[in-house]
Amino acid sequence: GFATIDTDRLSRTGLPEVIYASGKTVEQVKQIALRMVEKGIDLLATRATPAMFEAIQEVVPDAHYNELAQTITYKHHETEVPATYIAVVAAGTSDLPVAEEAVETAQFLGNRVEKIYDVGVAGIHRLFHRLDVIRRARVIIVVAGMEGALASVVGGLVDKPVIGVPTSIGYGANFEGLSALLSMLNSCASGVSVVNIDNGFGAACQASLINKLT
Amino acid sequence: GFATIDTDRLSRTGLPEVIYASGKTVEQVKQIALRMVEKGIDLLATRATPAMFEAIQEVVPDAHYNELAQTITYKHHETEVPATYIAVVAAGTSDLPVAEEAVETAQFLGNRVEKIYDVGVAGIHRLFHRLDVIRRARVIIVVAGMEGALASVVGGLVDKPVIGVPTSIGYGANFEGLSALLSMLNSCASGVSVVNIDNGFGAACQASLINKLT
Amino acid sequence: GFATIDTDRLSRTGLPEVIYASGKTVEQVKQIALRMVEKGIDLLATRATPAMFEAIQEVVPDAHYNELAQTITYKHHETEVPATYIAVVAAGTSDLPVAEEAVETAQFLGNRVEKIYDVGVAGIHRLFHRLDVIRRARVIIVVAGMEGALASVVGGLVDKPVIGVPTSIGYGANFEGLSALLSMLNSCASGVSVVNIDNGFGAACQASLINKLT
Amino acid sequence: GFATIDTDRLSRTGLPEVIYASGKTVEQVKQIALRMVEKGIDLLATRATPAMFEAIQEVVPDAHYNELAQTITYKHHETEVPATYIAVVAAGTSDLPVAEEAVETAQFLGNRVEKIYDVGVAGIHRLFHRLDVIRRARVIIVVAGMEGALASVVGGLVDKPVIGVPTSIGYGANFEGLSALLSMLNSCASGVSVVNIDNGFGAACQASLINKLT
Amino acid sequence: GFATIDTDRLSRTGLPEVIYASGKTVEQVKQIALRMVEKGIDLLATRATPAMFEAIQEVVPDAHYNELAQTITYKHHETEVPATYIAVVAAGTSDLPVAEEAVETAQFLGNRVEKIYDVGVAGIHRLFHRLDVIRRARVIIVVAGMEGALASVVGGLVDKPVIGVPTSIGYGANFEGLSALLSMLNSCASGVSVVNIDNGFGAACQASLINKLT
Amino acid sequence: GFATIDTDRLSRTGLPEVIYASGKTVEQVKQIALRMVEKGIDLLATRATPAMFEAIQEVVPDAHYNELAQTITYKHHETEVPATYIAVVAAGTSDLPVAEEAVETAQFLGNRVEKIYDVGVAGIHRLFHRLDVIRRARVIIVVAGMEGALASVVGGLVDKPVIGVPTSIGYGANFEGLSALLSMLNSCASGVSVVNIDNGFGAACQASLINKLT
Amino acid sequence: GFATIDTDRLSRTGLPEVIYASGKTVEQVKQIALRMVEKGIDLLATRATPAMFEAIQEVVPDAHYNELAQTITYKHHETEVPATYIAVVAAGTSDLPVAEEAVETAQFLGNRVEKIYDVGVAGIHRLFHRLDVIRRARVIIVVAGMEGALASVVGGLVDKPVIGVPTSIGYGANFEGLSALLSMLNSCASGVSVVNIDNGFGAACQASLINKLT
Amino acid sequence: GFATIDTDRLSRTGLPEVIYASGKTVEQVKQIALRMVEKGIDLLATRATPAMFEAIQEVVPDAHYNELAQTITYKHHETEVPATYIAVVAAGTSDLPVAEEAVETAQFLGNRVEKIYDVGVAGIHRLFHRLDVIRRARVIIVVAGMEGALASVVGGLVDKPVIGVPTSIGYGANFEGLSALLSMLNSCASGVSVVNIDNGFGAACQASLINKLT
Ligand SMILES: Nc1ncnc2c1ncn2[C@@H]1O[C@H](COP(=O)(O)O)[C@@H](O)[C@H]1O
Ligand SMILES: Nc1ncnc2c1ncn2[C@@H]1O[C@H](COP(=O)(O)O)[C@@H](O)[C@H]1O
Ligand SMILES: Nc1ncnc2c1ncn2[C@@H]1O[C@H](COP(=O)(O)O)[C@@H](O)[C@H]1O
Ligand SMILES: Nc1ncnc2c1ncn2[C@@H]1O[C@H](COP(=O)(O)O)[C@@H](O)[C@H]1O
Ligand SMILES: [Mg+2]
Ligand SMILES: [Mg+2]
Ligand SMILES: [Mg+2]
Ligand SMILES: [Mg+2]
Ligand SMILES: [Mg+2]
Ligand SMILES: [Mg+2]
Ligand SMILES: [Mg+2]
Ligand SMILES: [Mg+2]
Repeated sequence: GFATIDTDRLSRTGLPEVIYASGKTVEQVKQIALRMVEKGIDLLATRATPAMFEAIQEVVPDAHYNELAQTITYKHHETEVPATYIAVVAAGTSDLPVAEEAVETAQFLGNRVEKIYDVGVAGIHRLFHRLDVIRRARVIIVVAGMEGALASVVGGLVDKPVIGVPTSIGYGANFEGLSALLSMLNSCASGVSVVNIDNGFGAACQASLINKLT
Repeated sequence: GFATIDTDRLSRTGLPEVIYASGKTVEQVKQIALRMVEKGIDLLATRATPAMFEAIQEVVPDAHYNELAQTITYKHHETEVPATYIAVVAAGTSDLPVAEEAVETAQFLGNRVEKIYDVGVAGIHRLFHRLDVIRRARVIIVVAGMEGALASVVGGLVDKPVIGVPTSIGYGANFEGLSALLSMLNSCASGVSVVNIDNGFGAACQASLINKLT
Repeated sequence: GFATIDTDRLSRTGLPEVIYASGKTVEQVKQIALRMVEKGIDLLATRATPAMFEAIQEVVPDAHYNELAQTITYKHHETEVPATYIAVVAAGTSDLPVAEEAVETAQFLGNRVEKIYDVGVAGIHRLFHRLDVIRRARVIIVVAGMEGALASVVGGLVDKPVIGVPTSIGYGANFEGLSALLSMLNSCASGVSVVNIDNGFGAACQASLINKLT
Repeated sequence: GFATIDTDRLSRTGLPEVIYASGKTVEQVKQIALRMVEKGIDLLATRATPAMFEAIQEVVPDAHYNELAQTITYKHHETEVPATYIAVVAAGTSDLPVAEEAVETAQFLGNRVEKIYDVGVAGIHRLFHRLDVIRRARVIIVVAGMEGALASVVGGLVDKPVIGVPTSIGYGANFEGLSALLSMLNSCASGVSVVNIDNGFGAACQASLINKLT
Repeated sequence: GFATIDTDRLSRTGLPEVIYASGKTVEQVKQIALRMVEKGIDLLATRATPAMFEAIQEVVPDAHYNELAQTITYKHHETEVPATYIAVVAAGTSDLPVAEEAVETAQFLGNRVEKIYDVGVAGIHRLFHRLDVIRRARVIIVVAGMEGALASVVGGLVDKPVIGVPTSIGYGANFEGLSALLSMLNSCASGVSVVNIDNGFGAACQASLINKLT
Repeated sequence: GFATIDTDRLSRTGLPEVIYASGKTVEQVKQIALRMVEKGIDLLATRATPAMFEAIQEVVPDAHYNELAQTITYKHHETEVPATYIAVVAAGTSDLPVAEEAVETAQFLGNRVEKIYDVGVAGIHRLFHRLDVIRRARVIIVVAGMEGALASVVGGLVDKPVIGVPTSIGYGANFEGLSALLSMLNSCASGVSVVNIDNGFGAACQASLINKLT
Repeated sequence: GFATIDTDRLSRTGLPEVIYASGKTVEQVKQIALRMVEKGIDLLATRATPAMFEAIQEVVPDAHYNELAQTITYKHHETEVPATYIAVVAAGTSDLPVAEEAVETAQFLGNRVEKIYDVGVAGIHRLFHRLDVIRRARVIIVVAGMEGALASVVGGLVDKPVIGVPTSIGYGANFEGLSALLSMLNSCASGVSVVNIDNGFGAACQASLINKLT
Repeated sequence: GFATIDTDRLSRTGLPEVIYASGKTVEQVKQIALRMVEKGIDLLATRATPAMFEAIQEVVPDAHYNELAQTITYKHHETEVPATYIAVVAAGTSDLPVAEEAVETAQFLGNRVEKIYDVGVAGIHRLFHRLDVIRRARVIIVVAGMEGALASVVGGLVDKPVIGVPTSIGYGANFEGLSALLSMLNSCASGVSVVNIDNGFGAACQASLINKLT
């Protein structure tokens, strides 16, 4: 086969094999999905198109598609979910696809999630209105494009680990997310780490590992 | 001579010739300073070392040095100062040299200045404590390094023009100020413009033109 | 809703919420536009396509579209306009979309505008012919791509604040506007500040704040 | 004073004010240290020179200096330490200053630390010999320069959050740490987040927040 | 004609003229292919589309197309092949087009090839399972995108020359392959050299020269 | 010997071997200089320190040093000089070392030179005062740092070839001359070509070839 | 009108106004072309599509299109051409569009041109076969992509000014022409200057000014 | 100890542990050297200063220092050397330190070496004079800075693997070796691979593995 599914990955790393659909054909994604479901592995495909979802539905009728997040999910059984939750904070409406990828991934991995959207620093009072729910989270994902200032601002207001996700939202000297990426890496608040531009998936993976620490 | 002083610059642009001392010898700076003072032009030298100040003092005994700002100033007469003021807001103590360059330049150009220092987003409540004095300014200079988030935050809280000065404070992925520069250029608050990294002088020049508009 | 309109923004920052249409669907832009108009907020959408305009016209029949600027505007009442004006200076005909975005935004925000177009430094006499109208402005926006030299040249000739807008016009070592951006940030004329590449909107926002200073 | 100590920071963010000594004078560092100790705040200075340590010793005789880490520490009382520990994994001997900065910071913040040094991928068997102690950690910091591959390799072998610290060790196309930074941001293992180049301090801050989650 | 075929290249450099089809029209590729085959030169076209293959088939009916590799090949006679082989090691399924370009090129140049695919460092045990076949190769090509760590890891495990091929697989801070390129150039294993991003062809050319050394 | 002097270079390329002293030891420069003079080759060393000059004077007493240009020259005979001249136009006093390197090189190569210094676009009237002498040149070298606008401005005013020399003068977003380099490469005036940052020597070489065309 | 044709440009700069068609609409290009021809100005449009040519043919039936060069030309009268010629040297067949843009421009400006194509350094004997015709030129344009080595090689073999045109041909670490651009700027042959990536037009403009020097 | 010597490395990878002295103290280098020699491992230290050599001489009196290469070597026994040789080709005299690092490393690893120095493309006839000795090598290392064209030129003339070593020699748009690095990665000759900027050591390691293939 063209792909060797790393079936042991969940027990080894706490995170299962996941389909990164970008750059794969509809048929490839469908076949990998089918094989995974047949082996009893739960299904998460990221960066998946509607056409991929339709193809998968033919073989996994109960699969679910989040159009904004571009994710396809299917779980064999509902898993138990810890009492603690992950907060997903997003700066602008344009950042929602990345935020939703984080939300879908976190939920797929068995976490409760609270969404705090459209609270960017252009109107920072919106963030303060929601600070309580952010502070009660066990770990916080901050999704922001343009200048990415939100990660530092949140990092300076909470005593929980903050994972920044720079997005590619913007133009010109934004250089497709470089601006937010550098901002978050240089955060003057100390408890902030960063994942790749637009990588809502990766942020949710680390947040899930943290949320499940006993 | 090695330099042609642009004597007409003040009347043409509202901003006089100024000595940018970096890369000049002590002797060169001294000679230019002397010639300017002799022609009745007020003296501002930026990026000036203590040795340059000592050399200038020999010929302009009443010159003044701001060690933090690295500026030498001398004015033939005190000029009248508008009632309105320029707010200079700085994020951290490491940004003070740049902030002070802005302050010295603004005062030299005949402006009142209010300083609001060490109010970076790692502890944003410090900014809110000083918001009144910032909001009453006619124009605001925001000096910040690292992720430079302060410019956007201030820009979203005031109805006055904000001029961002990214500083080279930081290390690693800060790339000597690139991080703060890109942040400020991508500000999600709309009334923010930007000058070169560490260019407190340039920010003060534009702020002065704005502050003096009638 | 997917977006929280920051209704308080105009009174807080002097600049209202504006729709940045790029990356939004026609339907999303239509819905936000409708909600804003219903709440009595004036409408400005930037980076808007003809299809978006048609969709908005169904619900806001008196909306206006500037195809070059890619802006949709609608105002509930004409506002009073200050006597002073903003000069919008553009280097070449390819820079006009950005210049027009600035013009539309400035007018929407209640300013008089004078346009001085196609006066780039390849034929600098064209600029000198129009210098009077530029010098009488209260604030000047300079829009230029390629090497962006026009901002420095204008900055050295006037005693008003100059806001440079680098454009992405050019190719090769232009690196999508980087060349003009760096030029303007390094302007040897002192009263020049800069906004993001192609950000005619942002330049007009700051120019409007300046033009309305009392 | 030139600095406003953010005394509330520890209770607000779980991380106290810390002195970033780089770019400050010996006298400044000494004064800030003294004021912090007098206010009963524990002392951590990073990027501190031997001269700074000597100056601080005059006023805080029991302060401690780690020459490799370039840290000065002083704690009023020993704090209780959780049973769980942070693993600090380093690739080469040249990465030790950054690794030690992480170790000192983590211990200062009240954590147990296990060090696993000189286990880079040029001789990957060295990593496998130490895998047990790495896997039993609650959170793992991976410090690596050059190509920074170690973060991905560790991330693919453990089920705990991994925080990567790229270092500036290398030359040429290493571009002062860019190479390792990009590597870690593009980790093909999913549970890896990243902090700034050489930022052992920041990694330890986040690791401490995670290690103390209850 | 628009192209001067360098007919002497094979005897001079051990590598024949090859058609780099990218940026050429279907008709141009067909004509060059025809002229080469008529002159008795074996045919290899890289970056070739299905349409190009169809056009060539009209004139060279026995040509062969590898859709994944995007290569068209035709050999007048089978050449003798050395007993030693080239190992082509690939990190992920997305890297296969580049790996296959290397395989097709190496075989076209008269080499035996062993493929070791989908053994990236996210599940490094997969690499160890295949280490024997890798170690017995005369020269090893390692194809990897994202953080490109596989080249260093393999380089530290074998005593044969390793040629790294960074791929453009990834997004965000991958910067279209820059991340893997810098990783491989900074390999902490010493016997690794690198070719251009996605250049499976070039790696195979050098590997073939090495494999044929007597 | 450690260097093979390319004695045939003058007749082949119209430009002799020249010592690029940067990165060479005083002793190496002295030895090469001596060998060249002994072979009857005229001597030009660029980027030469005073110590190098002193060492050369011991063996070539009539050598000449231009401290600003950092050049050492010695000619066995005066050569005839064409009637036409090269104009060297410089923007600011900080650009003079590069301008003088161009002047010294051009004169060494047997050309008349006119200097037009300190005429940058911050005070563009200074350029217009000197336009006549610039227009009468056979070829024009424009030396400018910061935003490098002067090359475009001159290029739009003359009908002679213009060679731009960007300098590394500036700071911050100047990125050690990148800003002026990109400006000049993107000149909107068409007859402008560019040499490397600070390469007054190279500009003079090409200008000399042009000035001597018959 | 949207464009101010700079009618005086030919007499002022030796180079007429030219239409840069990229980014303009078919209708805009047609209108500008018409107005220019009506004013008696010769017509050159670069980066012009076949559709633009068809539109122009309606109003300027004798216009000529070079599809490879993407140029449209029309001259009212044939101008006299100097006896000397410009050599246009190109490295590979993929570089021909840029080379042809240079050729068309040079001829339009009234120069004789000799073409030396497909002589890149992968088979450098091809260059030596044509060296005579290159050496007899008055000025030489070298067009090369990928590593752009041809400009240095030619520069080291001739005693005429060489203008390098880096092209964007290549992929990966070519970074859309950056590789060839940097190569040419760092040429170890001294008489080489450079224009923007893919700027065959600009090289021909400067070459024409040089070729016409009397 | 602070370093774990990877004693198994020679048998595993064909290349022994080597001391990379840059960034280590004299004392550290001395101790590691002593321990290696005591364990019977041959000694190679790269980037070593004269002071390091003196310190090592105290404990390893027969160690040898190459000042240009900055290498310290000591071998317990002379090893047998294959009949074939490695050619080290260098462009300019400034590239010699890197070339010599390659030579010393190759000899230390038990190879014969032929040096072909100062044959850069500014005077390409010098290369042709030495082509025979280059062509008879089993593998060729090409060391070049500035535009790095020499690697492509050699690659197009030989039928042996070519390993390019870009050097950081140059200034301005050379960007500390980036220019030569990109050139070599984009070589239009196909059998060329590349190592890091200034990495003569790494090139020699791979060349040695190739030279010893049986
Ligand atoms: N052309 C533009 N460039 C930059 N910012 C803009 C532009 N148009 C609108 N904006 C800003 O983007 C905000 C809307 O962002 P969003 O919440 O993502 O729709 C507006 O309130 C403006 O501040
Ligand atoms: N995939 C590839 N990547 C890099 N170079 C290639 C590739 N395929 C072919 N080539 C080279 O490109 C040359 C053809 O270039 P051209 O003359 O422009 O068609 C061939 O002789 C090969 O040396
Ligand atoms: N300032 C300079 N900038 C660029 N190239 C130079 C400069 N000065 C001399 N050169 C060139 O460098 C060559 C000498 O290089 P090398 O063999 O390393 O001494 C000379 O023949 C010139 O072509
Ligand atoms: N000049 C050099 N460039 C790159 N790598 C080197 C160099 N010299 C030694 N090395 C490598 O660096 C390793 C030692 O690294 P460390 O453990 O930090 O001392 C050696 O085993 C070599 O693989
Ligand atoms: Mg919003
Ligand atoms: Mg502070
Ligand atoms: Mg025009
Ligand atoms: Mg080691
Ligand atoms: Mg896989
Ligand atoms: Mg001046
Ligand atoms: Mg060819
Ligand atoms: Mg030489």
